[in-house]
Amino acid sequence: MSQATIVEVGPRDGLQNETSVTLAQRIALVDALSGTGLSQIEAGSFVSPKWVPQMADADQLFARIQRRPGVRYSALTPNLKGFDAAQQAGVDGVAVFGAASESFSQRNINCSVTESLLRFEPVFAAARAAGLPVRGYVSCVLGCPYEGDIDVAKVADVAESLYQMGCYEISLGDTIGVGTPAKAKAMVKAVAERVPPSALALHFHDTYGQALANVLACLDLGITTFDSAVAGLGGCPYAKGASGNLATEDLLYMLHGLGMDTGVNLGAVIAAGATICRQLNKVPSSKVAQAWLANHEEQPV
Amino acid sequence: MSQATIVEVGPRDGLQNETSVTLAQRIALVDALSGTGLSQIEAGSFVSPKWVPQMADADQLFARIQRRPGVRYSALTPNLKGFDAAQQAGVDGVAVFGAASESFSQRNINCSVTESLLRFEPVFAAARAAGLPVRGYVSCVLGCPYEGDIDVAKVADVAESLYQMGCYEISLGDTIGVGTPAKAKAMVKAVAERVPPSALALHFHDTYGQALANVLACLDLGITTFDSAVAGLGGCPYAKGASGNLATEDLLYMLHGLGMDTGVNLGAVIAAGATICRQLNKVPSSKVAQAWLANHEEQPV
Repeated sequence: MSQATIVEVGPRDGLQNETSVTLAQRIALVDALSGTGLSQIEAGSFVSPKWVPQMADADQLFARIQRRPGVRYSALTPNLKGFDAAQQAGVDGVAVFGAASESFSQRNINCSVTESLLRFEPVFAAARAAGLPVRGYVSCVLGCPYEGDIDVAKVADVAESLYQMGCYEISLGDTIGVGTPAKAKAMVKAVAERVPPSALALHFHDTYGQALANVLACLDLGITTFDSAVAGLGGCPYAKGASGNLATEDLLYMLHGLGMDTGVNLGAVIAAGATICRQLNKVPSSKVAQAWLANHEEQPV
Repeated sequence: MSQATIVEVGPRDGLQNETSVTLAQRIALVDALSGTGLSQIEAGSFVSPKWVPQMADADQLFARIQRRPGVRYSALTPNLKGFDAAQQAGVDGVAVFGAASESFSQRNINCSVTESLLRFEPVFAAARAAGLPVRGYVSCVLGCPYEGDIDVAKVADVAESLYQMGCYEISLGDTIGVGTPAKAKAMVKAVAERVPPSALALHFHDTYGQALANVLACLDLGITTFDSAVAGLGGCPYAKGASGNLATEDLLYMLHGLGMDTGVNLGAVIAAGATICRQLNKVPSSKVAQAWLANHEEQPV
């Protein structure tokens, strides 16, 4: 039976736009996800609370979650200050990011893609010294809200740069969820010529309902790591009102149906998603969760 | 550029469980869909209004819709009485159905699958005499709410029977939306050994979010006809609370992204779906429609 690894990004990518979420709710979500069999959870972000108040107090979050052996709890660290705080909080790994779109980089962080990567040099050096693994995100790999189509060569450039700088894994993000299967496959193929497929992950948003089909299209390219968010939490501020990340539940349902082993208990993920969605007063955007919750009185686990 | 055909089932399969829909709204929906470039619209059902009051007055619907040349307007006809009424109403085609599950057949129409098909003999004879094409639906092709997994040989048996009885096309329905890509592909492969792929259509419900991935998995088996419902309308009473048909918008987005030609204007379909959803006081369950409507003030066309 082939194996797949899920990187659960709900507590970070999923919640970063939820203005009402509390620290206690974020901690409870991470703890619930820890009991599902997931081996990788991106639990928070060490960014300035001025910019993303929803992600404040990541140090307290890491201090209060119940760490389960075998689970890697990681955090986004946009700069050295964030890295230092993350290290102090005892994270198991950090993540940095770059865009595959020059316009996206210029408009959001006011510098070129190359400059943005160079700014991470101190983070890589500090992570090496601390023995902490660094994950790299590439955004806009299948389209940019400002310039539209993105050349696959540009995606491969950024991915290769992050890999050479020291990332153990590069997560390819369809930030605005505009990709379709053939384009996703062509993009991953181009990147896989420069970075080993075993070091690639897919991070597809479901804005246009294509995320699962895009994952399927890339399965035979040797990719076995996929990012998703419980209950499909999240969304990109550049794709307004749109649905968010690929839902972990829907991804698990497909992978398990394909006979792949993820080590994750689907029912436990549905339960974790139902709880946070109740707290946020929203319906899970996972169709698997919706179907399960509609057909069962009892809890899914 | 390869071609694909969409059979729009929203006005029938999509609305048959909507208790508040009016005849005028159904007519307006068919008329709106007629302007999108769709070539096949299942517009209604000639069943007893005692059983499905939402589908009542199909004769009036067919009398009042504005027929566009080149569009086939069809209706479901469960028996000869329904067929006669449909013919009188001037339908361009009719549809009959059988289950791939004995339990489903027994529980719903109180007879075996074979008996249920034999009951359609008079409809086939009358359709032949009238020169009307007959489409066949097979339900539960990827799972049954009562008996779970369904043997692909059973699906092939029913599909072949309907084909031999005279159906020009067999639509394979994942009624409860439980299928995943490898299972979908294996099922279609088995059926395609008994019925030419050019005479097969896929009718996948999106209850577990798998419909689009399942379509993608079957594309390389030579299937080019797909059923879907505008705004993802519908749902199966046996998969309670669950999401309904594959949304036409999401299917078009993927097929067009794959470089396939459907002849259908996506924006016009979004507009038709937005209107009926406003009337039904619901949010379109198409993610493409949600994203579009969130990002645009103006109408999509």
